[in-house]
Amino acid sequence: MKIKVIHGPNLQLLGRREKDIYGELSLDEINSEISKVARSLGLDANIDQYNSEGDIVDAIGNAASKGIKGIIINPAAYTHTSIAILDAIRGCGIPVIEVHLSNIASREEYRKHSVTAEAVVGQISGFGKSSYLLALQALKEILV
Amino acid sequence: MKIKVIHGPNLQLLGRREKDIYGELSLDEINSEISKVARSLGLDANIDQYNSEGDIVDAIGNAASKGIKGIIINPAAYTHTSIAILDAIRGCGIPVIEVHLSNIASREEYRKHSVTAEAVVGQISGFGKSSYLLALQALKEILV
Amino acid sequence: MKIKVIHGPNLQLLGRREKDIYGELSLDEINSEISKVARSLGLDANIDQYNSEGDIVDAIGNAASKGIKGIIINPAAYTHTSIAILDAIRGCGIPVIEVHLSNIASREEYRKHSVTAEAVVGQISGFGKSSYLLALQALKEILV
Amino acid sequence: MKIKVIHGPNLQLLGRREKDIYGELSLDEINSEISKVARSLGLDANIDQYNSEGDIVDAIGNAASKGIKGIIINPAAYTHTSIAILDAIRGCGIPVIEVHLSNIASREEYRKHSVTAEAVVGQISGFGKSSYLLALQALKEILV
Amino acid sequence: MKIKVIHGPNLQLLGRREKDIYGELSLDEINSEISKVARSLGLDANIDQYNSEGDIVDAIGNAASKGIKGIIINPAAYTHTSIAILDAIRGCGIPVIEVHLSNIASREEYRKHSVTAEAVVGQISGFGKSSYLLALQALKEILV
Amino acid sequence: MKIKVIHGPNLQLLGRREKDIYGELSLDEINSEISKVARSLGLDANIDQYNSEGDIVDAIGNAASKGIKGIIINPAAYTHTSIAILDAIRGCGIPVIEVHLSNIASREEYRKHSVTAEAVVGQISGFGKSSYLLALQALKEILV
Amino acid sequence: MKIKVIHGPNLQLLGRREKDIYGELSLDEINSEISKVARSLGLDANIDQYNSEGDIVDAIGNAASKGIKGIIINPAAYTHTSIAILDAIRGCGIPVIEVHLSNIASREEYRKHSVTAEAVVGQISGFGKSSYLLALQALKEILV
Amino acid sequence: MKIKVIHGPNLQLLGRREKDIYGELSLDEINSEISKVARSLGLDANIDQYNSEGDIVDAIGNAASKGIKGIIINPAAYTHTSIAILDAIRGCGIPVIEVHLSNIASREEYRKHSVTAEAVVGQISGFGKSSYLLALQALKEILV
Amino acid sequence: MKIKVIHGPNLQLLGRREKDIYGELSLDEINSEISKVARSLGLDANIDQYNSEGDIVDAIGNAASKGIKGIIINPAAYTHTSIAILDAIRGCGIPVIEVHLSNIASREEYRKHSVTAEAVVGQISGFGKSSYLLALQALKEILV
Amino acid sequence: MKIKVIHGPNLQLLGRREKDIYGELSLDEINSEISKVARSLGLDANIDQYNSEGDIVDAIGNAASKGIKGIIINPAAYTHTSIAILDAIRGCGIPVIEVHLSNIASREEYRKHSVTAEAVVGQISGFGKSSYLLALQALKEILV
Amino acid sequence: MKIKVIHGPNLQLLGRREKDIYGELSLDEINSEISKVARSLGLDANIDQYNSEGDIVDAIGNAASKGIKGIIINPAAYTHTSIAILDAIRGCGIPVIEVHLSNIASREEYRKHSVTAEAVVGQISGFGKSSYLLALQALKEILV
Amino acid sequence: MKIKVIHGPNLQLLGRREKDIYGELSLDEINSEISKVARSLGLDANIDQYNSEGDIVDAIGNAASKGIKGIIINPAAYTHTSIAILDAIRGCGIPVIEVHLSNIASREEYRKHSVTAEAVVGQISGFGKSSYLLALQALKEILV
Repeated sequence: MKIKVIHGPNLQLLGRREKDIYGELSLDEINSEISKVARSLGLDANIDQYNSEGDIVDAIGNAASKGIKGIIINPAAYTHTSIAILDAIRGCGIPVIEVHLSNIASREEYRKHSVTAEAVVGQISGFGKSSYLLALQALKEILV
Repeated sequence: MKIKVIHGPNLQLLGRREKDIYGELSLDEINSEISKVARSLGLDANIDQYNSEGDIVDAIGNAASKGIKGIIINPAAYTHTSIAILDAIRGCGIPVIEVHLSNIASREEYRKHSVTAEAVVGQISGFGKSSYLLALQALKEILV
Repeated sequence: MKIKVIHGPNLQLLGRREKDIYGELSLDEINSEISKVARSLGLDANIDQYNSEGDIVDAIGNAASKGIKGIIINPAAYTHTSIAILDAIRGCGIPVIEVHLSNIASREEYRKHSVTAEAVVGQISGFGKSSYLLALQALKEILV
Repeated sequence: MKIKVIHGPNLQLLGRREKDIYGELSLDEINSEISKVARSLGLDANIDQYNSEGDIVDAIGNAASKGIKGIIINPAAYTHTSIAILDAIRGCGIPVIEVHLSNIASREEYRKHSVTAEAVVGQISGFGKSSYLLALQALKEILV
Repeated sequence: MKIKVIHGPNLQLLGRREKDIYGELSLDEINSEISKVARSLGLDANIDQYNSEGDIVDAIGNAASKGIKGIIINPAAYTHTSIAILDAIRGCGIPVIEVHLSNIASREEYRKHSVTAEAVVGQISGFGKSSYLLALQALKEILV
Repeated sequence: MKIKVIHGPNLQLLGRREKDIYGELSLDEINSEISKVARSLGLDANIDQYNSEGDIVDAIGNAASKGIKGIIINPAAYTHTSIAILDAIRGCGIPVIEVHLSNIASREEYRKHSVTAEAVVGQISGFGKSSYLLALQALKEILV
Repeated sequence: MKIKVIHGPNLQLLGRREKDIYGELSLDEINSEISKVARSLGLDANIDQYNSEGDIVDAIGNAASKGIKGIIINPAAYTHTSIAILDAIRGCGIPVIEVHLSNIASREEYRKHSVTAEAVVGQISGFGKSSYLLALQALKEILV
Repeated sequence: MKIKVIHGPNLQLLGRREKDIYGELSLDEINSEISKVARSLGLDANIDQYNSEGDIVDAIGNAASKGIKGIIINPAAYTHTSIAILDAIRGCGIPVIEVHLSNIASREEYRKHSVTAEAVVGQISGFGKSSYLLALQALKEILV
Repeated sequence: MKIKVIHGPNLQLLGRREKDIYGELSLDEINSEISKVARSLGLDANIDQYNSEGDIVDAIGNAASKGIKGIIINPAAYTHTSIAILDAIRGCGIPVIEVHLSNIASREEYRKHSVTAEAVVGQISGFGKSSYLLALQALKEILV
Repeated sequence: MKIKVIHGPNLQLLGRREKDIYGELSLDEINSEISKVARSLGLDANIDQYNSEGDIVDAIGNAASKGIKGIIINPAAYTHTSIAILDAIRGCGIPVIEVHLSNIASREEYRKHSVTAEAVVGQISGFGKSSYLLALQALKEILV
Repeated sequence: MKIKVIHGPNLQLLGRREKDIYGELSLDEINSEISKVARSLGLDANIDQYNSEGDIVDAIGNAASKGIKGIIINPAAYTHTSIAILDAIRGCGIPVIEVHLSNIASREEYRKHSVTAEAVVGQISGFGKSSYLLALQALKEILV
Repeated sequence: MKIKVIHGPNLQLLGRREKDIYGELSLDEINSEISKVARSLGLDANIDQYNSEGDIVDAIGNAASKGIKGIIINPAAYTHTSIAILDAIRGCGIPVIEVHLSNIASREEYRKHSVTAEAVVGQISGFGKSSYLLALQALKEILV
């Protein structure tokens, strides 16, 4: 069963940027854990990182027509402003789970509210890379 | 006389997504009606759909230099947040009309305010595909 | 087919007041264009101007019982404050279209939000007298 | 003992408009129940419906000089915006009770706050026609 | 038919505290009037006063399972802040009426909005002890 | 030289209502002082009191065509909410002065802001009937 | 009878600064008119201009002990922010009238609200130098 | 390893109340799943439901001294208002995970913000009973 | 002379929790200092700590009937939200002083405003345990 | 040990102004009590009253270089607006205690928030002249 | 030493668009001045203009790995909304200076606040093309 | 060519106060750098530091009459609140540049908005003493 994992803007900098907040792991290291756990759950994870809001809208909108059955997304900075991604999630026809590496509720005021979460099935935040891994299990359960 | 019609993010999903709000017609079906009505008014409509805010800014900014005389835009989700599109409309040197398929005034709080409308000639919203067709007439009248 | 066109407060001053915003035409001149275009569409337009919010509420509430099939309204100043007109539109049982001569989105902060638009089919604003004429076409299409 | 019952804007549409919110009874049916219960309490109820804010201000301001001893008012849409009615209640010199057919606390955000209630003796809302009938009893008790 | 009457925090102080706002009667005196009127309406009123939000949540949640058919509640200070009581009212499965001794609309800004009223059938406020007695009648009518 | 003095809603109650705020004089007593002082300044004061916002909009809009050269208005409760009166003042083509009996800056929060004052020449408030008399002098000076 | 006229910050620039808003007259020219009119009313006007908030607080607080019977103040920029001047007016024990050259209600958002006006007898604004002259008359009437 | 699971107010009503939002399962059924999964992870789950904010503060504050190593809490209605529970989480000295049955980001405005989440390790919401089960895994990983 | 000292939620954790903010002393150590200083002032201090808002409301409301002459309260987290405690203070009939260990004005935005302080005699905050000791002196002076 | 006591604007009016709020004592009477108590604590109190914000900024900034070891300040009206005094307190290098004669939490909305308190050690308010005397003790304790 | 200069959306229109605000120079003319001045400072300026937010995020994030030592950015419309660019600046590891051609503090309300400036070293605005040239000097000084 | 450099409140504390924010240099050291650079640009810099808002208003208002051709001002704390300084800048008739040592956009919420910047030519902030030196160059260029 194909699923898609979408990393939002600046996540390519993981492991280099603000390590006290986002941790020491690079995006490649996280991705290989995601792939491994996905496989163990019988999921085929297609993983991408995008800095452009429009590319994320494309990816979500096109997912169903490519045979993808569910999406895990960390919209990063776009979490707090993007109605376009919200609309894409609403219109894509497949379940979407939102994840965050850090606990956004304990950060700056403008990071506490998620615009995109209004349309997702559920949210998991604050567990570092495990936010993605728990989301894989949650998605598996929804898809079965 | 060349004009441009710009469809904003997620409108490629029309006819598949939230049909109770946006209707049953696909974007292709709407586009062929737009082309037909445009021709009957002596207008040559160049139609594009973009998911990226930057691509819309490009398209508006480049229009005049391509001989385009007026623009009809449905900025969709970017309507409510994009100062970049607002600036492009202000700076493009040709008249722009904003349209919406649904009556945004009767939807979620965050969809009631249009950031981009501050710079347009006028707005038409709530008439489904006819919003575009009425805009063609309005644009014709302005350009003549 | 009978329809009603309602002009809100101060519109009797058209052509005399703030011409840079509202244009040079008097209300009579606009009304005769409305009548003519309505007739060409097979519509019988009953046109009135009211300065009183209560009179507008009366006119909307009574319309259906007088055989009127649709309403075009420019609520002018009441656009931004009148829950009573909003309720009348909600309760009148026939389609209502809201029009504005100017593009209210580019004016003072308190003119950007329309209270009444929450209950209408659609809105057309910014095209001067053509806002009314385009609304006649839109109404025709809805009623047919 | 003479009292006055004032129905605010659009209440003439009762029984026709938004029945899921306001119920099936027409204003005439409610009025005849009010009259009957008033008589049983020894009250002579003068009942009027007004769409104009100014007419309501007139009616409240004139009441005392016509020998009216108390007022029951459903200000409807004007509840949420009318400082003029608030001032009339403050200045009229007789007790006023505010009633609503529906529970305004469970409706749209802009219907939750009552401007006019600041000056009344008390409020009764949410019991359909019984809101008026309970108010008759409450008014009787205050006047005795 | 069993009903429950719930008095919220500090109401045990009635007759001692701020008499200009809440009146001269003690809670016991009000309760004996409530019991008497309830009996005359064929209702068996179980009356309690609680200072703890949690106890009120308990009482509302347990009511139905104890054969109680309806609730009259004066949430006092919790009116303005308690989502927990709001949720209890939503989930309890029987009709709830909210009452207040004083007209909360004419008091401090923070007392004008009722959080709990969003889930009740209706509200009666401003009539002193009669707020409860009118509520008994209203509840009787709903339950019959 | 003809001028118009407009008293807004509830001012017919002067001398009866809230005397601690508005004073002991009746509207008739104030009006005869206004007439007398106007005559002494060579002004012919046409004085009216209206409870309806629409009637005030009519009166302002019609003034110039009746040969009136200036307006003194106490918009009372409509001061704080009426965009329609604001627009009438903007469009009427003659100078308008706003007056208040009491010092609105020291009253309730919602009475501190004047919507209508945005379009007047100047404001005089807090001097009881003298607010009108000072305005007559100010208007005289403007008109000469 | 001694009175004091206080000009607030930057008013020494009158006649040089933003003439379209504040007019062509210099402060000296205005002051000599004030003195002349004051004398004609039997008032002895002591006039000062201060750029420092503290100096204005001093001047108001000391006035009564210097035999001054009333104050006319144009707090200029401090109008909108100074609680210290508000407190001085409240505590000074003599009547204070607030004046403004321009109609502050038609200017920038942050100039529409007067903090200091909460404690004055009344306000006169928008009549240029005549704002002061009318205030002299109003003060005369209060002091007599 | 001992952990504590805390269910907040009204959760005893699960399976009876608003099933479209909270699902068909009773609290007992959810609890036995939690116990089972906990055991499979080598965790000994002590589970309680409290309607009182103070009881939840007690339970969190006492946990460490009872040998409990981590807490999973669904603060329900208190999520949105309780600084006391926030402080308890901050001061308890052991990791706390916040869970919600429904996706609170897609519900009423006042349910979108979590006060308590500011102090937790992470949040999991929207997955029904699985929110708790995923939290068990997350907690296990943190504790190991 | 009997007085009561009330410690609010989570204060039982003192000396263990967030020592950089609240200091190293345990609640027992603070309490024995309070008792000692109270005795030296001729006061008999009854000291309690409560995590439940309702228990604090009980304690304040019952104080006078138990012969208590004054209260010192640190409402902790309830400071910022509890209208119920505010009402209890208003209604209890004896003087109440509010204290805080830390200077709440220099902490999180939501800790800067005290709801409960509206009804107290005075506040002392920021001096650690000395906040209580200074309050004992202040209370002594008020009671004598 | 030298300390400084700073009285803010308008406090020279004490005993004359608004006695119901600030009491009957003159500033001189309060100052002689402060001096006496200071001496009894081994403190040498230098006391000044300033109406100018700038003078207060000077006094705080210069204190340390004059051998002053601590400051007690009642910033009066500047409490609520002065970032300059806040910065002076932050930068002066010695402990500062803020006092108020009245309980500012129970006064006008704009007096509830203290801008300056963000930088002080602690606050004492509501005890009249005793606010200063308690502050002397608190300061003594901090300095020892 | 390599640096990067980033021009945000719509700046390709310079010299054509709103010349009263942005000046007469084209982007090419500005760029050749930037290059020249950079060279004179020993800096090698790589200059790009982007309409897409994602492209700007890419450019900032990739800069360090391309040997770029500092960035000068005019985020134009994205200044006011882009958390993604803010995050890129925070995470890029090299100093960033924000510039604006116009003085954004004197423009529309929504242009006064810079979201992106929270993470930059400093800001220079209002000097037209010189904003860039001064920034080159400032950057030189930081890098040396 | 004479120019004036104005340092606002508390800047006399530089080098002693909050060095992590404002740096190690004393005001004298900064001033001698300013003088030196000014001379090298052919400017004669008159430099003053003021703690009083009124003194700053004086200095700006008097500048032109003293032959000063331009002003560089760091309004420090007054930046965020002073309409009086804003008005002085508007009215002084010569160009003014605003500077800040720190990047105010990355500091407390109340330091992010500059009231005074609305009237300046441009702003430079975040570069420590270099903010002044860059401003000298910018001013030179404007004056030439």
